[in-house]
Amino acid sequence: MIVPAEEARNLATQVLRLHGTPETHAEIQADLLLEAELRGYASHGLLRLPRIVERIRNGVADPSAVGLSQWVHPGFLRVDGQRGLGPVIALRGLDEISERARQIGIAVAAVDNSNHIGMLAWYAERIAAAGQIALCFSTSEALVHPWGGRRAMIGTNPIAIGVPARPHPFVMDMATSLVAMGKIYDHANRAQAIPSHWALDRHGKPTTDPEAAKAGAIAPFGDAKGYALGLAFELLVSALAGSALGQSVQGTLDSTKVCNKGDVFIVISPDIETETADELSRYLNAVRNCPPIDGFSAVTVPGDRSRASRVERLTAGISLPDEVWGELLELAGAQHQKRDQGTLQ
Amino acid sequence: MIVPAEEARNLATQVLRLHGTPETHAEIQADLLLEAELRGYASHGLLRLPRIVERIRNGVADPSAVGLSQWVHPGFLRVDGQRGLGPVIALRGLDEISERARQIGIAVAAVDNSNHIGMLAWYAERIAAAGQIALCFSTSEALVHPWGGRRAMIGTNPIAIGVPARPHPFVMDMATSLVAMGKIYDHANRAQAIPSHWALDRHGKPTTDPEAAKAGAIAPFGDAKGYALGLAFELLVSALAGSALGQSVQGTLDSTKVCNKGDVFIVISPDIETETADELSRYLNAVRNCPPIDGFSAVTVPGDRSRASRVERLTAGISLPDEVWGELLELAGAQHQKRDQGTLQ
Repeated sequence: MIVPAEEARNLATQVLRLHGTPETHAEIQADLLLEAELRGYASHGLLRLPRIVERIRNGVADPSAVGLSQWVHPGFLRVDGQRGLGPVIALRGLDEISERARQIGIAVAAVDNSNHIGMLAWYAERIAAAGQIALCFSTSEALVHPWGGRRAMIGTNPIAIGVPARPHPFVMDMATSLVAMGKIYDHANRAQAIPSHWALDRHGKPTTDPEAAKAGAIAPFGDAKGYALGLAFELLVSALAGSALGQSVQGTLDSTKVCNKGDVFIVISPDIETETADELSRYLNAVRNCPPIDGFSAVTVPGDRSRASRVERLTAGISLPDEVWGELLELAGAQHQKRDQGTLQ
Repeated sequence: MIVPAEEARNLATQVLRLHGTPETHAEIQADLLLEAELRGYASHGLLRLPRIVERIRNGVADPSAVGLSQWVHPGFLRVDGQRGLGPVIALRGLDEISERARQIGIAVAAVDNSNHIGMLAWYAERIAAAGQIALCFSTSEALVHPWGGRRAMIGTNPIAIGVPARPHPFVMDMATSLVAMGKIYDHANRAQAIPSHWALDRHGKPTTDPEAAKAGAIAPFGDAKGYALGLAFELLVSALAGSALGQSVQGTLDSTKVCNKGDVFIVISPDIETETADELSRYLNAVRNCPPIDGFSAVTVPGDRSRASRVERLTAGISLPDEVWGELLELAGAQHQKRDQGTLQ
């Protein structure tokens, strides 16, 4: 079904508020999920909300927590997320290091004990739009096999990079897995086969059966190089945030375990001169104007497609599976009902 | 031919000294090239030396330059390389930010007007071995086509990441191109066809002819994701270092143009506790022990193979094409001769 963006935003905020989330925190979390929907990343969108609510109910996410941050060095912020909502904790740390970077040129935030932070582009864009450079990393449960290995031992470990440009900042955001686990679930739901190079089954054999892949491991993107990157991010984040590694990571997919992955943000204030920003933008336009090869209608720059999607969906509305919308309505309604019952007693 | 490592190091140092390079600078440059040979990266090894000498002769590389560095912020070091030798300039900046990172947690160096810095692993390993985390970036002449595009518009833009571990630091170093241009030259020299997905010819058509590929463009690794990374690094480096972009970059392959690419180093001092370093190392060993899939004898961690190669070649010697060794002997001899003639006059 098609839902106007503002209606979806309001429902998401309401669901969160009904489950004990302070208004500003509910707005931040809802905005992150809605922005993912607008940009066409349904896997990071509203379908995540029921899981967040379950985690709040189960006490492994504390919607009121604001995180405890400490400057262990003038340029190094350590953040204990206190089991708070991912974007609430991350945004606070990010804004702190953004301000510090303006003073000293660069700063890093290492976050642990926080929940899933969703689409990294949301953070990178915020910084790049403010004229700074952002590098964002996050780890996840082990879903990816090492290059040449049979078992899932590495997170889907995304990276996002934001660089100021005009009229829009440059933002790239990608997982180091070949595909998202959400895509494999999607194929399973529709009983569609997956290409044999996407994943291994739990015995470490290539499979075209999405159900078998769900119990197995996803391939890294780009063979040995993507594996090297994903592994490097796993180590980098854990070394800085003190977060768990590989198969010890939990709480990013389930609804009962304390989340022990880590997030790392680096913000650099380059004092970009007008001239430089213009050059970056001219170069990006030159790349867009590169003649396409056969089979491509145009060359795009990372972020172009999600920006176009956002513009379109802001007016046309977002497309949601009926079940997702139904579940959100139920989460709002059931809670209403409970409250009514509570009032009646 | 097989040459003992020390003999190769001495000859390289001698060649550089005979062409006006101060002893400490000659040792740094020779060490970088020799380490590439020892680790099995011939494309970044001694075959680069004749080009470096030509650049010195042509005045586009100044072997005496030490670079002019300036802390524009407490955590941001800007380095004007003064046309110096790449590793001489880079090492100086790297050591400055390493020390600063110990004080304030993180620091960045942005280098321009410097020559080719070679294998990035050399820098990342130095920092990781000292207990810090390194992120290294460098740009190059445009050799890679955008995903879906016909023309070379992006450098091979490598990244290296170093993280402390035991007994060896973790070091990964990779270009964002699918293959090195050196590999295509190698196929051309041996008149061997290349796989059709490696490169496009100058008309933007896939080619199996390495000669046609030399005039065309290499594919990014990992399709759209590798393209996004390479492009992000191109922008990141240029935004920070003020270096040239895309097809404007020159001086990394030729011997006559001032080099206008950029290099960026980020060093983070995480105060890694013994416990954390042990956990990183245990995790890396668990990855190495992951059962291999059919066709693989073992899972390796980035750096394992080059470390094994180094150990072997330190005793067995390095393998060099006759022409490369001959050219180095000539560069040493011809200069000797010139000097003798000079003395006789």
